[in-house]
Amino acid sequence: MSLTVGVIGGGQLARMMVPAAVELGIEIRVLAESAAASAQIAASAVGDYRSRDDVLRFAEGVDVITFDHEHVPQDVLHALVDSGVAVRPGPDALLYAQDKLLMRDRLSALGLPVPDWASVVSTEELASFIGDHGGRAVVKTPRGGYDGKGVRVVSDADEVADWFVAGEPLLVEELVDFRRELSQVLARRPSGEIALWTVVESVQRDGVCAEVIAPAPGSSSKLVDVAAEVATAVAENLGVTGVLAVELFETTDERLLINELAMRPHNSGHWTIDGAATSQFEQHLRAVLDLPLGSTAMRDPWSVMVNLFGGPIVERYPAALADQPGVKFHAYGKEPRPGRKAGHVTAGGDDLDEVAFRARAAAAFFEE
Amino acid sequence: MSLTVGVIGGGQLARMMVPAAVELGIEIRVLAESAAASAQIAASAVGDYRSRDDVLRFAEGVDVITFDHEHVPQDVLHALVDSGVAVRPGPDALLYAQDKLLMRDRLSALGLPVPDWASVVSTEELASFIGDHGGRAVVKTPRGGYDGKGVRVVSDADEVADWFVAGEPLLVEELVDFRRELSQVLARRPSGEIALWTVVESVQRDGVCAEVIAPAPGSSSKLVDVAAEVATAVAENLGVTGVLAVELFETTDERLLINELAMRPHNSGHWTIDGAATSQFEQHLRAVLDLPLGSTAMRDPWSVMVNLFGGPIVERYPAALADQPGVKFHAYGKEPRPGRKAGHVTAGGDDLDEVAFRARAAAAFFEE
Repeated sequence: MSLTVGVIGGGQLARMMVPAAVELGIEIRVLAESAAASAQIAASAVGDYRSRDDVLRFAEGVDVITFDHEHVPQDVLHALVDSGVAVRPGPDALLYAQDKLLMRDRLSALGLPVPDWASVVSTEELASFIGDHGGRAVVKTPRGGYDGKGVRVVSDADEVADWFVAGEPLLVEELVDFRRELSQVLARRPSGEIALWTVVESVQRDGVCAEVIAPAPGSSSKLVDVAAEVATAVAENLGVTGVLAVELFETTDERLLINELAMRPHNSGHWTIDGAATSQFEQHLRAVLDLPLGSTAMRDPWSVMVNLFGGPIVERYPAALADQPGVKFHAYGKEPRPGRKAGHVTAGGDDLDEVAFRARAAAAFFEE
Repeated sequence: MSLTVGVIGGGQLARMMVPAAVELGIEIRVLAESAAASAQIAASAVGDYRSRDDVLRFAEGVDVITFDHEHVPQDVLHALVDSGVAVRPGPDALLYAQDKLLMRDRLSALGLPVPDWASVVSTEELASFIGDHGGRAVVKTPRGGYDGKGVRVVSDADEVADWFVAGEPLLVEELVDFRRELSQVLARRPSGEIALWTVVESVQRDGVCAEVIAPAPGSSSKLVDVAAEVATAVAENLGVTGVLAVELFETTDERLLINELAMRPHNSGHWTIDGAATSQFEQHLRAVLDLPLGSTAMRDPWSVMVNLFGGPIVERYPAALADQPGVKFHAYGKEPRPGRKAGHVTAGGDDLDEVAFRARAAAAFFEE
């Protein structure tokens, strides 16, 4: 017997599943977008994740299909299920990661804490929402957005007039007065077992995650409990299997509101590779294979992850590695491109200031 | 620019370099013995490490060649060097890992501590050595032995009469009255930088490493210093690059004697994957690429590694992973075969007894 996991999508999330698979002795195969994909070392096929034929052919002989991203169309997901292969997370869960309007609607129906929101189909409806919420709001395209794309903060409905042209409804949300952004990452098995890492603070710049601090500094035990309860409720009610990241706003009046969901390993969990007993990538593989989950204990009291953008990375190792022998360096094997997530660094230790200093000092060698 | 390492040999040591390479963004290619090799995920070619043509073809386009094992013949190694590719460790160092007589001779000439030894070409010479050393001795074939193969403890020279048939000299050594076996693992760059992990205790069963305890319990600071000095002297004088393991006897009269050398990642260093800031596999890649070495600090006060023999491994994960959520499990993707190293488990923590208990409890699920 061997265990074989098929991953649709060859980005850095698939790439970072490879070390965990190799260590555990699990066979990993990737359906990559191109031969130069980040996860190319495990690519068993190059193909289009929107093509039923490509995906069904790729899935032959694997024990379970999982994902580098949430963009596989529902008809392709259902074709996989109909072919008899295990798909984790399944189409009925992924739906809520694919469509932000459905997500907001479902979370509201479950009574989970979300910002005020509405589905709007016209500038008039949007203008009305903006007027009711202090003159500003966040507008999101329900599908296809990531890393700040498909998101605009507006004070006038005309600022997204171009988005209404498509005729599809848009999601509008109140502009939350938040103190900081948090993320609660967990993994859930089909059999129901759930394991949560500590809740972390995610520092965004220009709508993109720049830095993650684990655990979120100065968190009350109540905040920690609520974050865990909310994320657990999402996982259980939406039937998520594998890793789930629940991005949260901590408001200035000490509430937690759900911002976004990701049903896959997530940037806010990269610190777990070096900072936790079980990384989110190992845990994701265990979870989708319905194997018992590993300990989520931290290896150090503090862990700080800083993203590296653009690249090049490896070229700058001689100076960076010499300067920071205790920092862990990660490069995604991508062609350098401005603003692109090209790698990350993680530091761990007993003192947050010192840990953050080391991680940032290491990252500074790779600044664009 | 990218960095590309070519590894000759597709066993578990090459396999365990893959996660480190993927995380660092280093391209790794393996010349594997077969398509079913343990390191198959990184195999760019299947070929014979004794074939100059196979090896030279494999080496095209890589920045450095390194090894899963020490068996590449000297003429092939020199052909690589002559072709202009960096070979680390180089042929002049590997010679001493390939031939135990040359190794003993060189270490003796350097004044490093070794057991009494001799090169013998006849049962008469061997009988004389045995007579001079209390009636027992250890006889070794100079080449090709590993994991207890090519080693016999004898009290009568006729017990290795079959080995003399080949006409080659044999190595005979005193049977050292040792308290325990230790291993000092380090890495050295071509530029000279050296980084040592803590000295560990290696528990052997039937001539094969069964368990490793890091650090070696109850070691005096003098023992720690001497182990580091001896291993550093070996690395520097033999010009080793990459990882070097120096296996040592700690005698009942508190001396350290060099037993064996390995110029590659070594079983006594597997604990570093989970137990040290930088694993021996990451450090080996850094060293052979002449990149700055990483911290060798331990992640926990104690780390215990237990080998898994035979297999199957993955099939027994459901029970084992559920029982030991904090233990790290490693499987080498090999077909089950009695006595074969098929994987290992590592536990870490503050209390040696508890750590050893957990590692052994996890390993017990895989007993043959």
